[in-house]
Amino acid sequence: MEVQQVLHMNGGVGKTSYANNSLLQRAVISTVKPIVDASIEELCCTLFPECLKIADLGCSSGPNTLLVVSDIIDNIRNTFQKLNRPPPSLQAFLNDLPRNDFNTVFRSLPGFYKKLDEEPEKKLGPCFIAGMPGSFYGRLFPDNSLHFVHSSYALMWISEVPKGLVTKEGEALNNGNIYIAKTSPPAVFKQYLEQFKRDFTVFLRSRAEELVPGGSMVLTTMGSIKSDDPLCIWEFVGTKLNDMVLEGLIEEEKLDTFNMPYYAPTTKEIEEVIEAEGSFILQNLEVFKNDWDSYVKQADSGLDKKTRAAIFATDIRAVGEPILASQFGEAPMDDLFRRFEADVLDHMERENCQFINLVISLTKKR
Amino acid sequence: MEVQQVLHMNGGVGKTSYANNSLLQRAVISTVKPIVDASIEELCCTLFPECLKIADLGCSSGPNTLLVVSDIIDNIRNTFQKLNRPPPSLQAFLNDLPRNDFNTVFRSLPGFYKKLDEEPEKKLGPCFIAGMPGSFYGRLFPDNSLHFVHSSYALMWISEVPKGLVTKEGEALNNGNIYIAKTSPPAVFKQYLEQFKRDFTVFLRSRAEELVPGGSMVLTTMGSIKSDDPLCIWEFVGTKLNDMVLEGLIEEEKLDTFNMPYYAPTTKEIEEVIEAEGSFILQNLEVFKNDWDSYVKQADSGLDKKTRAAIFATDIRAVGEPILASQFGEAPMDDLFRRFEADVLDHMERENCQFINLVISLTKKR
Repeated sequence: MEVQQVLHMNGGVGKTSYANNSLLQRAVISTVKPIVDASIEELCCTLFPECLKIADLGCSSGPNTLLVVSDIIDNIRNTFQKLNRPPPSLQAFLNDLPRNDFNTVFRSLPGFYKKLDEEPEKKLGPCFIAGMPGSFYGRLFPDNSLHFVHSSYALMWISEVPKGLVTKEGEALNNGNIYIAKTSPPAVFKQYLEQFKRDFTVFLRSRAEELVPGGSMVLTTMGSIKSDDPLCIWEFVGTKLNDMVLEGLIEEEKLDTFNMPYYAPTTKEIEEVIEAEGSFILQNLEVFKNDWDSYVKQADSGLDKKTRAAIFATDIRAVGEPILASQFGEAPMDDLFRRFEADVLDHMERENCQFINLVISLTKKR
Repeated sequence: MEVQQVLHMNGGVGKTSYANNSLLQRAVISTVKPIVDASIEELCCTLFPECLKIADLGCSSGPNTLLVVSDIIDNIRNTFQKLNRPPPSLQAFLNDLPRNDFNTVFRSLPGFYKKLDEEPEKKLGPCFIAGMPGSFYGRLFPDNSLHFVHSSYALMWISEVPKGLVTKEGEALNNGNIYIAKTSPPAVFKQYLEQFKRDFTVFLRSRAEELVPGGSMVLTTMGSIKSDDPLCIWEFVGTKLNDMVLEGLIEEEKLDTFNMPYYAPTTKEIEEVIEAEGSFILQNLEVFKNDWDSYVKQADSGLDKKTRAAIFATDIRAVGEPILASQFGEAPMDDLFRRFEADVLDHMERENCQFINLVISLTKKR
């Protein structure tokens, strides 16, 4: 499996599209906003760029894509008003893998620019929004060409499924699971951790070359308390796939040889890679936790359990479907997410099911 | 009609897609290559950029999109080899209107990069290809941020259909035609010329702000000998639409109120706008002419007349269909281009049917 070919959110604007089912990611962006604000403000006050150049890595395709840019524009305007200086122009690069649905993002840009023009109090210098397709596990921009890098809910997608999870002899190490699970042997955990370390190191090194000295990053990713803790959503999806294997609906071998290109690191693992890579100062590393469905409750506290489960299932489907369907086919997806929806909130009552989010603020050493 | 909403080549990679029917544009790019080469070489020898930043305006979506970038990469490599200097990195922005099919372009990038990597003799510094959606009749990039701008077969699309072609009272000036034709009154020509002057002035002013001093542009567009000469392909399409009106297949009013957002200027008109705008030195302005179907003959000299007509009709359809269908609907398109195909080569024998191409080389004043 070539991760670049299959890792993308559901495209378009239909019922199962990511664009219509990204409430979770929106809630995370809101929570992290004060940290992004502080970082941008610091940047504006120290670098005074004529044109602020930023990149959003793993921008996906939906309302959140331009939300980040919009928040940053608000912030720059406020900061420069406080400084009593003319605001800079802005060049924003929206990055995602080449199979991301950039067309939908681009088609929403005329409306976005129009809204900016209609709110003169939001007026910056000119604002230029470009798309930059490619993997952030490698170089994306010229040397010293960016001031700020943002990434939300993207870095947990690693560049490839660790090769060692299936031995050269074809033996699958992580039978019956699609990610690190309680029943996974230690070798599985080790393979994932090593892949994460390699990937995150390449990520940091690439960004270090691209950012100007003093430039900064705010990265939000899914994390874990201990690397093998039992709360991951993909472990739960794995149990449903396992049920379908037991009922003969999915071939056992297909499940055994499939693993998600995903890793949720601990704060300690993050800190160690940053330290070892050496280009960045870690300004801040925050952890916040939420029950799986708390963002749904937050958006509408009046929803009953059944409705909450349906929304949550659709949101996870929008994220996971392309990659799961690449292994198991489109056919079992309806059944899989029906099972997910039917059981997920009961499961939450039985086990401690939380998203753990890590927010990492970094500054490139001068 | 909002030109931004309807002006794009046929998307995707299907039978009537622009991607599969852009041989004409390819032939033009090949013809212009020596002029682009000279311009890039001059640039490399005078500016010595660490990262060469270029933009292709009106890149469309098809094999030609990356052909231009590929040619420029070859050229930079050769030039820097001659200079015995390490080659710069390259940041290339592919620009088109937001409704262009960028997804198809972006999905071909991994293969493009892979090919570059496999040809070490083609190796530059790193090469970064981004998409920049937006109208080139306005700002697209920050101040002083580009070294070279290329545009091929895009500037003949003006920003809007001249408003004066239908009077405030609803009277259509260009009855029975969709572009300047022999039977068009002088007011039609005047409206088009004024729109062109406004648009090309905005284009030059925008690029002047974006290019570094000494930066350059090579622009290829369709031109005319006299502004009202009778050779334009859209005049011919107009006669076919007129036939369909006479047969009751298209409403007369629909044809009378429709005009193409297109203008093919003379060299004199081009020179006058450049002179009046004042930011650029005109280095070179070349005219070359080709029979409508000569690019088809060139690609395969063994094709019979019927096959040549079919290829030519499909190529023009790939360009014109979205905008024509926005006025006349999808339904009459098959019929329209069948008529086009049936008559076009006979028409060429009766009249002098040529594409006139203008190649404009400009340098921003220092």
